[in-house]
Amino acid sequence: MEPGENIKDSAVREFKEETGLDIENPELRGSFTFIMREEEKTAQEWMMFTFYTTSYTGELLEESEEGELEWVPVDEVLNKPMAEGDREIFRHILSSDHQLYGTFVYTTDFQLIDQDLDPS
Amino acid sequence: MEPGENIKDSAVREFKEETGLDIENPELRGSFTFIMREEEKTAQEWMMFTFYTTSYTGELLEESEEGELEWVPVDEVLNKPMAEGDREIFRHILSSDHQLYGTFVYTTDFQLIDQDLDPS
Repeated sequence: MEPGENIKDSAVREFKEETGLDIENPELRGSFTFIMREEEKTAQEWMMFTFYTTSYTGELLEESEEGELEWVPVDEVLNKPMAEGDREIFRHILSSDHQLYGTFVYTTDFQLIDQDLDPS
Repeated sequence: MEPGENIKDSAVREFKEETGLDIENPELRGSFTFIMREEEKTAQEWMMFTFYTTSYTGELLEESEEGELEWVPVDEVLNKPMAEGDREIFRHILSSDHQLYGTFVYTTDFQLIDQDLDPS
């Protein structure tokens, strides 16, 4: 997040930077705490907020600093390579419009050690 | 927030510590960024998340580290002394179940300099 931004401002700005698209009316659906653990200690801790929208303007970039970009059909999203915790987040958000809260604990090479999801 | 907590965990724990009440099914309604400005510089920046619930168990403490506690009728809440930005937050949350996002800029003695609310 940049100074003075709220989480919705950040989501809109970052989506634009990383995809070229201007999303409209993003709705907050998930609030998460991540811990990266190294030898029993917390090496890093951060938060992530997940928004949902079906509305945007603009054209998808072919690539950005994040890599190559492509549209993925909704029913194929869960088959894509991603961190295990992210798959749980997609699974919830693609099937419910209720807020999801959670904590995920990862190793430094992104193996999921523990998760606590609400609703579980 | 304590290590590994998500924002809902924190809200439940802090509400219990500061009031003695166990709140049930709190729903996230607002996500805010606060900046405290001193001589044109940001002296402090933090986030606040506001939850709504009408359900709880337990008995209200008479006082806690936060001060004396009392129940306030909903139609008197906006007349209580509070930071100006907090009044805007209460005004929205008591009249709408839509998510509110915002940024508030304060002086170090909590005078509101600027605010950006979405929806405004």
